[in-house]
Amino acid sequence: MEKAELIAVDWGTTRFRAFLVSANGVVLAKAVADDGILSVASGGFPAALEKHCGAWLATSPDIPVVMAGMVGSRNGWVEAPYRQCPATVSDIAASMISVSHDERHRVWIVPGLSIRDSSGTPDVLRGEETLAIGTGLTSGLVVLPGTHSKWVRMDQGRIVGFATFMTGELYATLLSDTILGRLREEPDDQVGFAKGLQAASGPGGLSHQAFSARTTVLMGDLSGHSVASYISGLLIGSEIMEGFAMEPDAEKIIVVAEGAIAEAYELAFRTKERNVSFMTPDSCFIEGLRRLGASRLGKK
Amino acid sequence: MEKAELIAVDWGTTRFRAFLVSANGVVLAKAVADDGILSVASGGFPAALEKHCGAWLATSPDIPVVMAGMVGSRNGWVEAPYRQCPATVSDIAASMISVSHDERHRVWIVPGLSIRDSSGTPDVLRGEETLAIGTGLTSGLVVLPGTHSKWVRMDQGRIVGFATFMTGELYATLLSDTILGRLREEPDDQVGFAKGLQAASGPGGLSHQAFSARTTVLMGDLSGHSVASYISGLLIGSEIMEGFAMEPDAEKIIVVAEGAIAEAYELAFRTKERNVSFMTPDSCFIEGLRRLGASRLGKK
Repeated sequence: MEKAELIAVDWGTTRFRAFLVSANGVVLAKAVADDGILSVASGGFPAALEKHCGAWLATSPDIPVVMAGMVGSRNGWVEAPYRQCPATVSDIAASMISVSHDERHRVWIVPGLSIRDSSGTPDVLRGEETLAIGTGLTSGLVVLPGTHSKWVRMDQGRIVGFATFMTGELYATLLSDTILGRLREEPDDQVGFAKGLQAASGPGGLSHQAFSARTTVLMGDLSGHSVASYISGLLIGSEIMEGFAMEPDAEKIIVVAEGAIAEAYELAFRTKERNVSFMTPDSCFIEGLRRLGASRLGKK
Repeated sequence: MEKAELIAVDWGTTRFRAFLVSANGVVLAKAVADDGILSVASGGFPAALEKHCGAWLATSPDIPVVMAGMVGSRNGWVEAPYRQCPATVSDIAASMISVSHDERHRVWIVPGLSIRDSSGTPDVLRGEETLAIGTGLTSGLVVLPGTHSKWVRMDQGRIVGFATFMTGELYATLLSDTILGRLREEPDDQVGFAKGLQAASGPGGLSHQAFSARTTVLMGDLSGHSVASYISGLLIGSEIMEGFAMEPDAEKIIVVAEGAIAEAYELAFRTKERNVSFMTPDSCFIEGLRRLGASRLGKK
């Protein structure tokens, strides 16, 4: 077995995931649990880390632990304050917070990033800085679909800007908590996706366009089985249109996604005649923490 | 007492309201109940009308009853199919559906309207056609704030187009069912409204801008007490901006609203340097049904 060099931890709101990683970036072991930060009591973080990674730490006493995600938020282990954009890898690494696990181990938390747009409105991310760095993209756009999708702009190896779109959360809430879900019939089909994409380029913005998820069914244009895919197409189409409007010059685009979400974004980008490449979240996350760790701790 | 000439009924999803109206449009009596169409069993509509208006019908045997709202929807008394735009008052009156109450009384249901935009996406309204007609506006825009706000375009006395914005429903659902409501602290203040209006003119569209209701609090720009008014400002600002983008040439604008909602829209329109006048929903509703009734039934 290759020698372990890093424990990479993705500690989010509802989920804990840790990877034991070799010098070549190979995942030697993996731990996944439902111990997200919401279920860890204040002061309980060292014990939770020990519970999931104690065996690895015992075997490799000198191994550093680098963590990213909501573990660095106000309700996490320690707040790692947002660092302002633009930021290089070494800027972010230099802002990593050291937390004491025990005397033998070095445990670090990666900070999130903040930015203000031209009108002064702030935006934040936490965890996605690591994924963006892990893509290895020097200049271009990194698109990170999710509950809160992030569009991250890279320039000469720096993170120079980003924007959040509430795509995943709006999908869930529009379907379950508004009138738009009432005409939905299960099982869902995928027929509505292309129509939703098309509706996103129409007039009126999202608050107007969303209502058409109801009216298209009322008028017999769409089956109730297609309501969910229609809303998905509308929200992803809107995200892509607005994302490009904010970053019209991006040439290289990497989407960090896999499975059904990657397929949906691929179809949506193809409709816009934009070429994109795809990378998996796990590979980007591990590579991002390796880069941040190497910058802060020095390469071995 | 003036002679009663019309019973005007606003029968919506959750509420029944009836007005006994004189030839001059004076309200002689009023009945309000929670008997919205959702709480009336199929076939129970004649009895529900009799329950609330039976005394008026007994006193004025020849009086016509004209009803608008969801009573004409698929789940109402009888479905009064959507009439396509453009439509004149007499077009809509000619599409009114007659339902039998008993042999003596003439009971009518006003149809809703449908339209398709340039990309073929449909939109519908039901009840707001009556309010728009009741404003008496010949050419210009009628803005009807609500759970689903409607912007209705009038030209030479016809309803030539309209668009829905889910402003009220999105306000409720974003606050109660998404992460945006988590930083809200009660009591709500009004400080966020102007900031939300401003955020609506920023880049990224609603799915991006809405996230700033959280980040402005995280970054210390906004108090938790201002989250609700910020979201309100953002949604109303977005509605007005998109509404005008769809109808840039409108000169005369009437907003049908009263109380706090009228104040909010007045402030929002003032920020856009647009002059608008206000009318109350009840007066427009009664006047709209009087005009439709007169067109169909002939003036006495």
